[in-house]
Amino acid sequence: MTAFTSDNVSGIHPAIFAALSDENSGYRMPYGNDETSARLDAAFSDLFEREVAVIPCTSGTAANAIGLSLLAGPINSVLVHERSHVYVDECNAPEFYSNARLEPLKGANCKIDPSEIDRLLTTLGEAHSPQPSAISITQSNEVGLVHTLEELSELVDHSKKGGLRVHMDGARFANAVASLNCSPAEMTWKLGVDVLSFGATKNGCMAAEAIVLFDQNLVKQAKYRQKRAGQLLSKNRFLAAQLLAYLNDQLWLENARQGNNQMKTFVEQLSGLNGVILPESVDSNMMFCGFSQEQNRALQEAGLAGYLFEDGRMRLVCSWATQDSDIDGFINCVKAAI
Amino acid sequence: MTAFTSDNVSGIHPAIFAALSDENSGYRMPYGNDETSARLDAAFSDLFEREVAVIPCTSGTAANAIGLSLLAGPINSVLVHERSHVYVDECNAPEFYSNARLEPLKGANCKIDPSEIDRLLTTLGEAHSPQPSAISITQSNEVGLVHTLEELSELVDHSKKGGLRVHMDGARFANAVASLNCSPAEMTWKLGVDVLSFGATKNGCMAAEAIVLFDQNLVKQAKYRQKRAGQLLSKNRFLAAQLLAYLNDQLWLENARQGNNQMKTFVEQLSGLNGVILPESVDSNMMFCGFSQEQNRALQEAGLAGYLFEDGRMRLVCSWATQDSDIDGFINCVKAAI
Amino acid sequence: MTAFTSDNVSGIHPAIFAALSDENSGYRMPYGNDETSARLDAAFSDLFEREVAVIPCTSGTAANAIGLSLLAGPINSVLVHERSHVYVDECNAPEFYSNARLEPLKGANCKIDPSEIDRLLTTLGEAHSPQPSAISITQSNEVGLVHTLEELSELVDHSKKGGLRVHMDGARFANAVASLNCSPAEMTWKLGVDVLSFGATKNGCMAAEAIVLFDQNLVKQAKYRQKRAGQLLSKNRFLAAQLLAYLNDQLWLENARQGNNQMKTFVEQLSGLNGVILPESVDSNMMFCGFSQEQNRALQEAGLAGYLFEDGRMRLVCSWATQDSDIDGFINCVKAAI
Amino acid sequence: MTAFTSDNVSGIHPAIFAALSDENSGYRMPYGNDETSARLDAAFSDLFEREVAVIPCTSGTAANAIGLSLLAGPINSVLVHERSHVYVDECNAPEFYSNARLEPLKGANCKIDPSEIDRLLTTLGEAHSPQPSAISITQSNEVGLVHTLEELSELVDHSKKGGLRVHMDGARFANAVASLNCSPAEMTWKLGVDVLSFGATKNGCMAAEAIVLFDQNLVKQAKYRQKRAGQLLSKNRFLAAQLLAYLNDQLWLENARQGNNQMKTFVEQLSGLNGVILPESVDSNMMFCGFSQEQNRALQEAGLAGYLFEDGRMRLVCSWATQDSDIDGFINCVKAAI
Repeated sequence: MTAFTSDNVSGIHPAIFAALSDENSGYRMPYGNDETSARLDAAFSDLFEREVAVIPCTSGTAANAIGLSLLAGPINSVLVHERSHVYVDECNAPEFYSNARLEPLKGANCKIDPSEIDRLLTTLGEAHSPQPSAISITQSNEVGLVHTLEELSELVDHSKKGGLRVHMDGARFANAVASLNCSPAEMTWKLGVDVLSFGATKNGCMAAEAIVLFDQNLVKQAKYRQKRAGQLLSKNRFLAAQLLAYLNDQLWLENARQGNNQMKTFVEQLSGLNGVILPESVDSNMMFCGFSQEQNRALQEAGLAGYLFEDGRMRLVCSWATQDSDIDGFINCVKAAI
Repeated sequence: MTAFTSDNVSGIHPAIFAALSDENSGYRMPYGNDETSARLDAAFSDLFEREVAVIPCTSGTAANAIGLSLLAGPINSVLVHERSHVYVDECNAPEFYSNARLEPLKGANCKIDPSEIDRLLTTLGEAHSPQPSAISITQSNEVGLVHTLEELSELVDHSKKGGLRVHMDGARFANAVASLNCSPAEMTWKLGVDVLSFGATKNGCMAAEAIVLFDQNLVKQAKYRQKRAGQLLSKNRFLAAQLLAYLNDQLWLENARQGNNQMKTFVEQLSGLNGVILPESVDSNMMFCGFSQEQNRALQEAGLAGYLFEDGRMRLVCSWATQDSDIDGFINCVKAAI
Repeated sequence: MTAFTSDNVSGIHPAIFAALSDENSGYRMPYGNDETSARLDAAFSDLFEREVAVIPCTSGTAANAIGLSLLAGPINSVLVHERSHVYVDECNAPEFYSNARLEPLKGANCKIDPSEIDRLLTTLGEAHSPQPSAISITQSNEVGLVHTLEELSELVDHSKKGGLRVHMDGARFANAVASLNCSPAEMTWKLGVDVLSFGATKNGCMAAEAIVLFDQNLVKQAKYRQKRAGQLLSKNRFLAAQLLAYLNDQLWLENARQGNNQMKTFVEQLSGLNGVILPESVDSNMMFCGFSQEQNRALQEAGLAGYLFEDGRMRLVCSWATQDSDIDGFINCVKAAI
Repeated sequence: MTAFTSDNVSGIHPAIFAALSDENSGYRMPYGNDETSARLDAAFSDLFEREVAVIPCTSGTAANAIGLSLLAGPINSVLVHERSHVYVDECNAPEFYSNARLEPLKGANCKIDPSEIDRLLTTLGEAHSPQPSAISITQSNEVGLVHTLEELSELVDHSKKGGLRVHMDGARFANAVASLNCSPAEMTWKLGVDVLSFGATKNGCMAAEAIVLFDQNLVKQAKYRQKRAGQLLSKNRFLAAQLLAYLNDQLWLENARQGNNQMKTFVEQLSGLNGVILPESVDSNMMFCGFSQEQNRALQEAGLAGYLFEDGRMRLVCSWATQDSDIDGFINCVKAAI
């Protein structure tokens, strides 16, 4: 068991747990017809500085899959990075919900190369090919890097030229906002994002994600697809309570800053240690780090190792819950193994 | 807001909430690879007096849909009652997950007429018809009635003659066991049930259902379908904690008895009141009751009415959380409106 | 082997076979990019007195399923008669292609009762139900009856009130036009039909049906769904050649009249024979007729029997190919068995 | 219009057309219940020297998609070459029918690199990945190359190590057999192929492909999926007649030899011409050839050009119908443009 395996090894943030407790009294109408659920759209509209509609879900996979199903159907394809979570870690869920194909694109650092979009767009109108209708961009992405607003803008521009709609996988949306120090609006609809998977589980909730719809025309489809997916909870109020507490007093942003800052501290302490190969840049709360064989072994034996990838690097993730003592313990083990 | 709208208007049982709190410390491996999750199969195997495998879900719709998808595929049909929850209240979810058709069968009191099974089985081998491969039986059912073991046995026998496999929608499984005073085993695999949706949300959990597999051959499909559905939670430990607390010290059964008993009290107090038309029999924690127009109006105005059905009867449901004062309030309103 | 089993026991009409032969010379561009295929839209637009788009298919099941998939999706239902071909004889194909549910409606004589439409429309907006988005009407229908234009109009009007779109299963479209002596336009788009399965196989073609789209907005989806279904033939020219020959010189109508007329003759000769129970009305080339047990047995032994239905009646179908001698042989057998 | 665009620019072989004519008399039972259809299994069993079951289809896309759906389901993936027809030219049909993902693999000359299979097999047991269950191999392949029996054997061996089942896309199966001079058995089930798409349309039929099942356990699923796909024709006899004529007197092999030989002649005449860049090897009836800009332009203007690919090479295909004069015309144009 290790603190750095993922940000989802953490538990429920105390403020969110308190909200669950507060919500646990009296009778409430089921299936989202309660007053807590009714406050969701307004809370997210405040956050995004415009009217949005919100579909709460219990997992990021469901949020991504329902979200994509609103932008791509049976005759379509969705452009994704070949190492994106939707492509490699969701066991056909996006295809299940959308009936579309995912087209794996290349690009350094887990960021889609814009020229790859252009390449795929040449299949528009081709009678034998699924027609590209959407792109999915992960922010912050699967290697912990954050697209700059300029990079996002470039991806969106290439996509919109072909009429594609834009989905953002924001499982770690908060960490990206904290990193860029921009507003949620600037990172989404102001750039042209149509549907956002707004992650909350990894950053302090128990099991709560929000599909944020910037296009009201998608709401009806989204609501019925949520139900059809088994994602409309009878006691939806507890899902709403988590999300509201998450937004309250900028907890979402504070938690993300905390995770990002702990990673900064972590990197500083790893920096310069023999055997340690840090990545060129660390943007958020996650990074991939190389260690010597001895260090890898020592970390493994101490139960401190993160997941080892094919290229030999170890994935390390901080969260709102990461303690200084976790970092100290890890650093001590690395030093001892030099 | 009314106490009797459904059993899902209740909150989280204190013992289950305490389990969530206990679980909320330290780091745990995600996606069910934690020690709490690892205890699920054994706990349910104890309950069912044989080895079972368990797939936890966050909604009954997801549990039913995944469960049915294990027993029926694209060329198949599933026999269901025409008023069953899977047919009328899950917005195509069973078809979405299984690609099979649901065949709506008739039968009094929301119980499938066994001769309807025979009728459908005549399509076996017919080249132009989807092939029946499964039946779904709700226990206790959509009008709160409980199939006797003999009735279940008859349905299963007719089904097995045609090679059908048997799914039980046990959204209110506990209430049925409490009503029949039998063991979970006697009501399921000993009769031939292959897959059970074991409900827990309505009876004290926050959002937790368990697909119970009595056939180990289904486990691999079930696990990957759970993931593909977006039902494999990263912080699965909180789902497991709910279910374990629910099983602990027979809380599931105690809660169901409490709900059933409150309904008994409720019926006794309604009995003989002018304008009130009670159903012939009340088996569990739910019933459909007729009231005079004045009473309906008065209940509506007092915010005490349950859901009114097309035939003019009101659905009333008790739960583990139903208070004597809830019953008193309702009775007083009815009496005042006579 | 019997002449009256179905109209599809017939072969290929000589004029259509000649067209196949004429088409069989030289090289042509594949996948519909040939000159013969290019003439389809214009030929059907002439027939329907307005611009239409045509998607050729090799089976009525494919035509119906693709057609319905344009009008109903995963969150929808399609209203159909409980004894319609799409519901009972296509093995989940409409659900496969559309992901929608088929809602079986009641109605005498295989015609949907308009009040059934109203009943289903009450689920519009209901959060737990698939949303009705289309109706499918078979013309002429599964028992050989033809909706009058007034009856069609009534069904369409009830449907349009709920925003439903209208599909017509015209596997025997020509027989209906011949029966009503109206124009194809009057029986379709002038009433509000959006998509038509225009049958040709039963009435003289080898394997050719046309999806006729009265709404140009559906064309792109239709073309890609045709390809995705495996219904875009490389040698599409032979499919187009069949359909063009079928339309040429009103062959489609002549063939249908011939089938209808042979049925009239058949009925006249059956009329008044002992043991024979004719239906109240015979509108087209198909009917269901009762015979005495002896007659049924004699017909069976002589290899002249049609398909016997559950109610004991025999289905009898004439086609463009039905010979007077076929009728004579059948009548003689019936008479001999009296 | 050009002779070399594809082998499907050809028409119907006279012997096959004659079979259609012979079949066009009298009444026959529909939906494959006729005597001609009944002969299919035996004819193919003779060809393959063992018992096989055959599902006739009207397109290669349908044959591939139904075939793959027998070997892979919603939780699975199918390993394919990234340039294979099933991946790039069937508009999501394999995913539509199977609900599985296609995993695009690399490999020179459109042949899957066996090490790519090993790489994908590392996802077996991985909880977040679709599980590989099948591989699809095209023979002869999309660039006209033929896998040797050794190459096929190697691909199958790597696949079987991971428990994969084997599909062969044999749209140009006959050309491969003619090229290898082996038996159909040697190229399929003797190596471990489970399901074969046996192409006939490109090689002389009008619209006829056969799914050949080497595993009797797949037959029931296949038959109902054929019906559900809309691929069970009412006048199936004409589909069967094409296939039987195609097998008769080794017409399938003669036609393929003719196509291959014409390509040999074509290559000989192109060889050594200025500006012409022939591929390293030409195995069957298709190849990709480079021309000078002048030649490309001249061929285009003369209406003789084949399809130009991204790398600037032109695809050229011969068939049973290719005339010496077609080759002469092409060569003359090339020579004139040097």
